[in-house]
Amino acid sequence: MELVVYLAGQIHDNWRDEIREKASKLGLPITFVGPMENHDRSDHIGEEILGPQPNKMLVDDAASDLNNLRTEVLLSKADVVIACFGEKYKQWNTAMDASAAISKNKPLILIRPESLIHPLKEIANKASVVCETADQAVKALSYIFETE
Amino acid sequence: MELVVYLAGQIHDNWRDEIREKASKLGLPITFVGPMENHDRSDHIGEEILGPQPNKMLVDDAASDLNNLRTEVLLSKADVVIACFGEKYKQWNTAMDASAAISKNKPLILIRPESLIHPLKEIANKASVVCETADQAVKALSYIFETE
Amino acid sequence: MELVVYLAGQIHDNWRDEIREKASKLGLPITFVGPMENHDRSDHIGEEILGPQPNKMLVDDAASDLNNLRTEVLLSKADVVIACFGEKYKQWNTAMDASAAISKNKPLILIRPESLIHPLKEIANKASVVCETADQAVKALSYIFETE
Amino acid sequence: MELVVYLAGQIHDNWRDEIREKASKLGLPITFVGPMENHDRSDHIGEEILGPQPNKMLVDDAASDLNNLRTEVLLSKADVVIACFGEKYKQWNTAMDASAAISKNKPLILIRPESLIHPLKEIANKASVVCETADQAVKALSYIFETE
Amino acid sequence: MELVVYLAGQIHDNWRDEIREKASKLGLPITFVGPMENHDRSDHIGEEILGPQPNKMLVDDAASDLNNLRTEVLLSKADVVIACFGEKYKQWNTAMDASAAISKNKPLILIRPESLIHPLKEIANKASVVCETADQAVKALSYIFETE
Amino acid sequence: MELVVYLAGQIHDNWRDEIREKASKLGLPITFVGPMENHDRSDHIGEEILGPQPNKMLVDDAASDLNNLRTEVLLSKADVVIACFGEKYKQWNTAMDASAAISKNKPLILIRPESLIHPLKEIANKASVVCETADQAVKALSYIFETE
Amino acid sequence: MELVVYLAGQIHDNWRDEIREKASKLGLPITFVGPMENHDRSDHIGEEILGPQPNKMLVDDAASDLNNLRTEVLLSKADVVIACFGEKYKQWNTAMDASAAISKNKPLILIRPESLIHPLKEIANKASVVCETADQAVKALSYIFETE
Amino acid sequence: MELVVYLAGQIHDNWRDEIREKASKLGLPITFVGPMENHDRSDHIGEEILGPQPNKMLVDDAASDLNNLRTEVLLSKADVVIACFGEKYKQWNTAMDASAAISKNKPLILIRPESLIHPLKEIANKASVVCETADQAVKALSYIFETE
Repeated sequence: MELVVYLAGQIHDNWRDEIREKASKLGLPITFVGPMENHDRSDHIGEEILGPQPNKMLVDDAASDLNNLRTEVLLSKADVVIACFGEKYKQWNTAMDASAAISKNKPLILIRPESLIHPLKEIANKASVVCETADQAVKALSYIFETE
Repeated sequence: MELVVYLAGQIHDNWRDEIREKASKLGLPITFVGPMENHDRSDHIGEEILGPQPNKMLVDDAASDLNNLRTEVLLSKADVVIACFGEKYKQWNTAMDASAAISKNKPLILIRPESLIHPLKEIANKASVVCETADQAVKALSYIFETE
Repeated sequence: MELVVYLAGQIHDNWRDEIREKASKLGLPITFVGPMENHDRSDHIGEEILGPQPNKMLVDDAASDLNNLRTEVLLSKADVVIACFGEKYKQWNTAMDASAAISKNKPLILIRPESLIHPLKEIANKASVVCETADQAVKALSYIFETE
Repeated sequence: MELVVYLAGQIHDNWRDEIREKASKLGLPITFVGPMENHDRSDHIGEEILGPQPNKMLVDDAASDLNNLRTEVLLSKADVVIACFGEKYKQWNTAMDASAAISKNKPLILIRPESLIHPLKEIANKASVVCETADQAVKALSYIFETE
Repeated sequence: MELVVYLAGQIHDNWRDEIREKASKLGLPITFVGPMENHDRSDHIGEEILGPQPNKMLVDDAASDLNNLRTEVLLSKADVVIACFGEKYKQWNTAMDASAAISKNKPLILIRPESLIHPLKEIANKASVVCETADQAVKALSYIFETE
Repeated sequence: MELVVYLAGQIHDNWRDEIREKASKLGLPITFVGPMENHDRSDHIGEEILGPQPNKMLVDDAASDLNNLRTEVLLSKADVVIACFGEKYKQWNTAMDASAAISKNKPLILIRPESLIHPLKEIANKASVVCETADQAVKALSYIFETE
Repeated sequence: MELVVYLAGQIHDNWRDEIREKASKLGLPITFVGPMENHDRSDHIGEEILGPQPNKMLVDDAASDLNNLRTEVLLSKADVVIACFGEKYKQWNTAMDASAAISKNKPLILIRPESLIHPLKEIANKASVVCETADQAVKALSYIFETE
Repeated sequence: MELVVYLAGQIHDNWRDEIREKASKLGLPITFVGPMENHDRSDHIGEEILGPQPNKMLVDDAASDLNNLRTEVLLSKADVVIACFGEKYKQWNTAMDASAAISKNKPLILIRPESLIHPLKEIANKASVVCETADQAVKALSYIFETE
């Protein structure tokens, strides 16, 4: 049995690498998917594919067309969603993806630092598992497959 | 035909009053619902109902139990969701409610200032209507009922 | 038992009046809903509520934001959808509404002239009832309530 | 991860070839499905399988039985739907397929010429991505798989 | 709390009257709905509304258009379905309605004579309650409301 | 706005009275529904309506036909489910109703004594609110309606 | 792309063989599933697995437990359902399976002799394709895969 | 065609081994999944992954986070659920899993000793098959695949 896990969260640094590497070391039969991790490309993918846009809002709107297309397709394939929040950035699309996962009955693993307990309390309350490190999230995934 | 509209967003000031008053003046057959608007009570409702909690995280968790119960019941009754974002606060539960609305095929009206266009671009992209003022949101609701 | 019926179709003339009048004469307990029937207002509702738009495509996009909001809310309330096609206009949004009705398991009554049999054959094939006049559509609605 | 993409639209010319070829050159792991592209066969498949029909309307109805069977089966397998509109033909079944995709939460990529912006505005408003060329549509598909 | 109960079954005799009368005597807050009970009208409703049909099969097909429209609308309103089978007639549409009820998670009460136990065993196996008389079916409905 | 609340749990004593009385004193607009509370009648309702049964297992099976019919109809009307566990009895049907509520996205309020924390941990983990007294459960319901 | 097709209908003769053979000759990538075709075993599978039953009705009920388990599992895997009616037998479980397919949005191909047009008119009206021979049904399946 | 079967029930002894071995001997193409069968690890998995917890209730809550995550993922993959009840233990999570299966339209095979007929009567009434031994459950699974 193979699982697909969507990694929702900011794309300014490479936090996903730790999850992928640890899962790989454990030999977990998991395909990880997620947003475009090249931040600059993600922000300009609308213009790249659809051409120049009349103003900044439409640059953003065109980019989100493509980013939402990608997220919808890949999230629909996911068995589990990991959403990772950090102290920087607005991360409203992370909250959007986390909530979409819950609404579609896909279990959510939430990673967040202690400092964000209060503002994330409603999302945490709906997550299946709440943890603070990538290592814990991978162990939660591993537990799904373990037999003893 | 009567509609139920859920007003998602922060509860630190009374932005909902303008919407309720304008809708009332127009005589729109709408029942507005939403979270507990008394911020202090919302943060301590867990202890108020379930008793003292061992630590701050559990105070938050107990409060979110009750707040999520309320949101789930009232959001399930809603025909439309208005989500209002401002420049202060994390507002991740607003994003969670907005995304839940979309996932449940409830149309979303998003109110946000121009300064938040970029970080809200993916949510805006999925909203039915994106506007900047409460007045515009009420006019959008009114349009659903107008006959000429 | 009361029913809600959505009247999908072009808004250049007042074809809906015949249906409403005939149903009213028969005393059918039906609330009819549908799009804004003032064509000019429908085309400019985006600017009216959201303000001036940078170009014609965005005028159209803003108008469709509001028109789709209205359609989604009212269609979700409907028990039956009547879609009326005529020989003029593209009417792709009529086809969109008819198909949305079918996908949401809402029975569709299709009204179309004989001349459109061929291009509408796939939609007709999925409709519950296909007829040529408003009078026939109202009789079909009436039959739902008749007891002998 | 492999995807299935349904190509909705007219079958009078071979516009689908460009999409298939470009996707093939990029090595995208996509299976393309769609309607019978032999127009004459599509129109007479009812008689071919079910035998002679008493009149022209029933020839059309029998053909649409088979065409709708095919569309329903293949659309239900699709992860993404591309709907292509051109300046010729009624294309109401294209609008029907596009709307069915949206109602079933399958992302829609809409290809249409600038001249059709106004009549397609409500469908465009619900599409994930709106573009003007097959090349752009393939790039949108490719973006789902790209990692940098 | 009011319930809607759909009475599925043949329309050659007035078996529904006993159910309606007994429920009425018990003062149960139930609205009963069901097919057109005038058998002749049910068989010719297609021609009555849509006009003369080219052959007998199309007379039947047109009639079933209207009968299925009625059933779909009323069954979608039902909280419970009673399906009554007797020793005469094919009653395949009764089996169709019973199965549609089960598939839509609407509890089914099956009334059938002892002689039909074997051929109805798969449907009986999926019904919530299987009984032999209208009186038993009404008592089952009444039990939903009783408080002691 | 009125709510329907299903009260799941054993029927050997009248624990539901406290909830109904407290909610009534608070003037909450709630209709409470639930199983037949007359335990003896609940156990013999199969024979009462369907007649004598060949053995004890079939007495039980016939009774559960009627009890499940009642539960399915009333649970489908509920906006919230309260499940109350005590130290006596197997209460597997209470667990069944609680789980059905969760699966149907109906928020669950769980009442259980401290002594049952361990064996109920998986159900508690899925409940919206977990408390120990009827008073707390009613306060949770009341909070849904409060405005300050 | 492979499809699964459920073959619903009586199990007194081997009508399914013709479908399987013709599909095999055409090389269609289809897995056919269906009920146990050994009629005697189907009728006694309850006793075979669960042991002797107290009376004939319970023999039937136990058999239908196993037969319905099988049908539910296999029907849930099916992309298309073929239901075949003949002039003999009650065939109410065939009607049940056909209706379950329709309710679950699985396209239905109905095979029936001309003599059954009238009693099957409501089911035929909901089928995607109605034909008279196994050969036609296989051609309909084949059409789903053909490219010219 | 391969099936996935979830084995719900207590984890204090190795009752699942008999099912797995018998299915293996029959060569059934079934992947069995289920909860962590190491009881001690199941009870302490919360602390193992998430670290020390402030009190016993939170040890239980953390463990159930992980156990529910596992169950949700694996149950969502299951085609059939087998729930086994014995005379020891509370087994409320077994009832929860059984009911979740039913609510998600996954057929349930219930194994229970004769002594539990009465308290399990409502769950038994909703199961597809009720039996007393693992051997019977495996035969029921085998019957899904048999062809004569």
